[in-house]
Amino acid sequence: MSSGERKQIKVGILGATGTVGQRFIQLLSTHPYFVIHALGASSRSAGQRYGKVTKWKLNTPIPKEIGNMVVQECKPDAEGFKECGVVFSGLDADVAGEIEEAFRSANLIVFSNAKNYRRDPLCPLIVPLVNPSHLSIIPHQKKTLGLEKGYIVTNANCSTTGLVVPLAALEKAFGPLETVMVTTLQAISGAGYPGVSSLDILDNVVPHIGGEEEKIEWETNKILGGLNSDNTQFDLHSNESVKAINVSATTTRVPVIDGHTGVVSVKFSKSPAPSMEEIDRAFREFRCEAQELNVPSAPPQAIVVHDAPDRPQPRLDRDLHNGACVSVGRVRPCPVLDVKFVCLIDNVRLGAATSSIMNAEIAVEKGLIV
Amino acid sequence: MSSGERKQIKVGILGATGTVGQRFIQLLSTHPYFVIHALGASSRSAGQRYGKVTKWKLNTPIPKEIGNMVVQECKPDAEGFKECGVVFSGLDADVAGEIEEAFRSANLIVFSNAKNYRRDPLCPLIVPLVNPSHLSIIPHQKKTLGLEKGYIVTNANCSTTGLVVPLAALEKAFGPLETVMVTTLQAISGAGYPGVSSLDILDNVVPHIGGEEEKIEWETNKILGGLNSDNTQFDLHSNESVKAINVSATTTRVPVIDGHTGVVSVKFSKSPAPSMEEIDRAFREFRCEAQELNVPSAPPQAIVVHDAPDRPQPRLDRDLHNGACVSVGRVRPCPVLDVKFVCLIDNVRLGAATSSIMNAEIAVEKGLIV
Amino acid sequence: MSSGERKQIKVGILGATGTVGQRFIQLLSTHPYFVIHALGASSRSAGQRYGKVTKWKLNTPIPKEIGNMVVQECKPDAEGFKECGVVFSGLDADVAGEIEEAFRSANLIVFSNAKNYRRDPLCPLIVPLVNPSHLSIIPHQKKTLGLEKGYIVTNANCSTTGLVVPLAALEKAFGPLETVMVTTLQAISGAGYPGVSSLDILDNVVPHIGGEEEKIEWETNKILGGLNSDNTQFDLHSNESVKAINVSATTTRVPVIDGHTGVVSVKFSKSPAPSMEEIDRAFREFRCEAQELNVPSAPPQAIVVHDAPDRPQPRLDRDLHNGACVSVGRVRPCPVLDVKFVCLIDNVRLGAATSSIMNAEIAVEKGLIV
Amino acid sequence: MSSGERKQIKVGILGATGTVGQRFIQLLSTHPYFVIHALGASSRSAGQRYGKVTKWKLNTPIPKEIGNMVVQECKPDAEGFKECGVVFSGLDADVAGEIEEAFRSANLIVFSNAKNYRRDPLCPLIVPLVNPSHLSIIPHQKKTLGLEKGYIVTNANCSTTGLVVPLAALEKAFGPLETVMVTTLQAISGAGYPGVSSLDILDNVVPHIGGEEEKIEWETNKILGGLNSDNTQFDLHSNESVKAINVSATTTRVPVIDGHTGVVSVKFSKSPAPSMEEIDRAFREFRCEAQELNVPSAPPQAIVVHDAPDRPQPRLDRDLHNGACVSVGRVRPCPVLDVKFVCLIDNVRLGAATSSIMNAEIAVEKGLIV
Repeated sequence: MSSGERKQIKVGILGATGTVGQRFIQLLSTHPYFVIHALGASSRSAGQRYGKVTKWKLNTPIPKEIGNMVVQECKPDAEGFKECGVVFSGLDADVAGEIEEAFRSANLIVFSNAKNYRRDPLCPLIVPLVNPSHLSIIPHQKKTLGLEKGYIVTNANCSTTGLVVPLAALEKAFGPLETVMVTTLQAISGAGYPGVSSLDILDNVVPHIGGEEEKIEWETNKILGGLNSDNTQFDLHSNESVKAINVSATTTRVPVIDGHTGVVSVKFSKSPAPSMEEIDRAFREFRCEAQELNVPSAPPQAIVVHDAPDRPQPRLDRDLHNGACVSVGRVRPCPVLDVKFVCLIDNVRLGAATSSIMNAEIAVEKGLIV
Repeated sequence: MSSGERKQIKVGILGATGTVGQRFIQLLSTHPYFVIHALGASSRSAGQRYGKVTKWKLNTPIPKEIGNMVVQECKPDAEGFKECGVVFSGLDADVAGEIEEAFRSANLIVFSNAKNYRRDPLCPLIVPLVNPSHLSIIPHQKKTLGLEKGYIVTNANCSTTGLVVPLAALEKAFGPLETVMVTTLQAISGAGYPGVSSLDILDNVVPHIGGEEEKIEWETNKILGGLNSDNTQFDLHSNESVKAINVSATTTRVPVIDGHTGVVSVKFSKSPAPSMEEIDRAFREFRCEAQELNVPSAPPQAIVVHDAPDRPQPRLDRDLHNGACVSVGRVRPCPVLDVKFVCLIDNVRLGAATSSIMNAEIAVEKGLIV
Repeated sequence: MSSGERKQIKVGILGATGTVGQRFIQLLSTHPYFVIHALGASSRSAGQRYGKVTKWKLNTPIPKEIGNMVVQECKPDAEGFKECGVVFSGLDADVAGEIEEAFRSANLIVFSNAKNYRRDPLCPLIVPLVNPSHLSIIPHQKKTLGLEKGYIVTNANCSTTGLVVPLAALEKAFGPLETVMVTTLQAISGAGYPGVSSLDILDNVVPHIGGEEEKIEWETNKILGGLNSDNTQFDLHSNESVKAINVSATTTRVPVIDGHTGVVSVKFSKSPAPSMEEIDRAFREFRCEAQELNVPSAPPQAIVVHDAPDRPQPRLDRDLHNGACVSVGRVRPCPVLDVKFVCLIDNVRLGAATSSIMNAEIAVEKGLIV
Repeated sequence: MSSGERKQIKVGILGATGTVGQRFIQLLSTHPYFVIHALGASSRSAGQRYGKVTKWKLNTPIPKEIGNMVVQECKPDAEGFKECGVVFSGLDADVAGEIEEAFRSANLIVFSNAKNYRRDPLCPLIVPLVNPSHLSIIPHQKKTLGLEKGYIVTNANCSTTGLVVPLAALEKAFGPLETVMVTTLQAISGAGYPGVSSLDILDNVVPHIGGEEEKIEWETNKILGGLNSDNTQFDLHSNESVKAINVSATTTRVPVIDGHTGVVSVKFSKSPAPSMEEIDRAFREFRCEAQELNVPSAPPQAIVVHDAPDRPQPRLDRDLHNGACVSVGRVRPCPVLDVKFVCLIDNVRLGAATSSIMNAEIAVEKGLIV
């Protein structure tokens, strides 16, 4: 069925007034599969028009019809959510746990950008350019919880996402990785709004982002790990047959608006390690399931390899393929591990809203959203 | 002899109008040992008053008496240089090689911030808080070149300097290091003036600084290495008894004015590795020869260890001890190597002019400058 | 004739590797009227592929077919220019004078962003949303110079452009203005590349831009002035019947990438002055000839009036209508003059390349380019 | 009595953990007249050590003895305040009104940086380099309120302060001003901490600061106005003999850490206006009462006039004379009014804490604090 013939699916957005919620609206307001049907925010905003209660911070205007929609509370029985085929969540972690659970219990399907269920053994943690196969655990999630229809799918932390796409390309081409070291230089938009005080970041670097290093070190293994044969358990790269990747991360905040840069070194399990030419080719030739399925948000290239020695750069490269790919550059030997390179992700698109949406597009194609 | 009784030594400054030259002037204009006697710059500026030809970019005014001095060409027989006990060089690398050699040949003593003679087997490469003992090669340098008085001493690259101070503390406490991985986030002032275009760095990161990674990887071993027993050859951490440290560096430019941040992971040769408490204590208790000699530019602490999890930060910590120390923070286990931490150096002071000056102060105390 | 049927006009770009040249390429590579046929740059770049010699600084990639074009010298007889229906010039002022004259003398039509011919009594200085009627002097320009086909049209300084659009709306609605005071906060991209050193602008304001204030004060009157009845002379708002507007400008540089902000106060000739409501309506209802002609680059609104008290802001509003409109906000009484407001222009689009292109589009519609 | 012999006066600081409070501590910790005796903050911080509860954001460390002090609630009977000869207030406006009144009622002397009492007809609004003569209303304030000792003195808004110092120099030399137009480019530190979100100001200008324009337009006239002959009423530049200055202000926020820039145009009452040379000389020769009294915080020059056409600049000039002077540059004719110039003030020092402290120093010299 071509997208032209497809019936549009009504969607809701939780945390619609926040920075991730604004991106959901920007990306979904012209989406071929989805049509925005319900907007949820805090009780402070509920009952008022979206355009009135939102401090819109994107450089495209609020779509007119969205600006006029009345914001609801984030409750499954608030007006509009019941009819939604999917609910996207851009909620903050302090409230996402309870609200998303309430939506799932009400047999709604939740695709969440929040961290709360990422480590849940029933919830897939999906980077759409890497492991959509993990969606196969959904029947088990529903069955375990006794739900006919409701389930939760999460996407990964923004920095993790920028890292695992090139790692997945390397594992696909050369087998398991042994060690990964990464230093991130992260954009301020990753902290939401108001987020980072300008007094903390102008002419400055903050060499610490609370909880971020643990997320990268842990999520990487769940994403790159497998599902067992009956689709009931994640392997986490740590069962006997697949050893976990040893990941060491340091995360820093820099005065960049959008775009997280990662400085990465990798050691392969196999020895001798592949050559730089082989690695470069593996990045360039990487194809993923989202591309095979040809979902609307899938980028033409999952990884763009830059030849110039001073790229990728956030300001110049974050908009490539509408922010839906990962840029890689400076592929060269590491004197300590095997290879080092630099990667870049648009943290607010592929690192957040675009991932959630692309995950849902894939779920549609797999018949998991109807 | 107390500094109060000491006769002041006349000094010259090469490259006096540049950014490093300006720092030399700022730091030397009130120095207890040295008095500025000659200023050298390009032939374009020569013959004119310093205040007129210099685009002064520091936030303290040009010292009045310096502003009125007439700039000379960078030639040993230009007015004033012959009387100088030391000549400090803030020259760019493209001209430093020939000019510094000419000054040395004219039996002048040169303390240089340029990279040209750092790898020279006769020239000491000295970080004043680490290896002033390498000054012992000077007699051999003079003898080899048949010079009665002239010699060249270099200081290290700014990022290398920020790295080797904590590494020296670790080696002093725990013996040789095996592996070092470092990612730097470097300030724009490291590139001089006009240096980095604002269009390249506002809202951006540039993940490449030409030649910088090689400097860090190479210089670290010369600085932390030894001199042979007759003071004629550097060991470079690579003779049979001392294995070279395996260093892997990635250097990036960030929108920070002053202060290079380093994200570092280290593996010790000894096993088991020291505990985090032992490492923390080694940083805090590190004392160096510059402090024992009590030279004017030596900081009260060579390393300041920060307890707050989000420090050191360039804007808040670069001015500690007048920019003459290295800040260290976030000391914690590395899942891949043994320990990881963050370090910070004021690249324009300890990373450049302050190092050169402190090296010369030490040379004075050792009787190498009279 | 619909644009679908229109024969595309071959165009050349002078200064194609510079920042304005890059914008010309970005905007013209998919243009309905124009097709890029020749690229001119310095002799250093001539003979090489555009993609190889250009430090491309835009966040969209170089169009592939352009990257492969061979760059020519900026000479009318260099390959390709002879066939061009228009040549766009993004040349620097130090070379634009001679080169543009050479092209005109060779009977080529030049639409220039450079300042050199803006004050020329034969050359129209056109802001496309304001005074395309000044194109009527072209027959006189050609006749005076004895040229069959060649002529030069200039567009205005970027800050002037952002100012005169709202001023034109006020004059159209309320008659002549008496006094204008303006302070600009200008983006770094206005200075080209490498342009402003990052050491000069990070955490800083530079309260001076050489020559900029004089341009604003002078150009405003030529643009808002008339042509005499036989289309041979500009009135410059200073003949007897139309008094010149008294303009006072201060121009500053701020750490913004794109988008010049203007803080404006205006006094009307007529008394009493119009009310704030009338002024607000005049801005909102302003329609211009470019919109009537419906040329491709004309924005749906020449002026976008913002209601929020803290808008327009360069980062959020410079992309409105593809950078082809002027934003206005904070319309309120001035205690000294009559009204004050804030305006914003995308200096690299409407303030430069977009103006040149829109001027040419209008010239096409008027039969001046064939 | 020389300062060496003077008995130090105990002082308290209200709002000690905030950004202005931190500056008070930095400046007072080594003050020749004052010794910090009590620190007041919100009840959340009260009872805990200052170093523990404060997010210190200055680039000098917390003075050790202050870090160990126990924070009190902002109540006059909290431990320590009763013994204070002066209490400095860096409180936010939402709480300053009640708290400062409570301290005054308890017969304590309050020097406040808050806006609450600036327009009070009994409270002097003093810029120490301009109108310390207004302290003469204090006996009337105490008498009216029936207080033996307590009174409140306020200092001005930071932008107003930067403006009125050069205006005072002009009035002193040339008599009353008729008209002043000013556009400010203000630093983020003016908004406190966390204050301006980095997402709002990186690569951006915000052309609005709530309430700021009204403050400049109103406060200027109180500061430059007189006191009546029996020191009981301010003249506000609006009695019959002295016409109010017509002030029009637009205030904007720019990505600068410290230092407010003002772009100013002035029209004199007298005609013909003074020449540019006379005006330049008036700025350079301006001497004020704080200098005559030789109080510790008085700068050697109240106004520093810059000759370079691109100065003053916040990053390069805000530290002049320890942030206690105003910089002026670009003095030149205004085509609309008489003269235009650029001024710069360190908003966190002379624009806030330094003014309050210098006001108190002057009060000490006048016998108003004992």
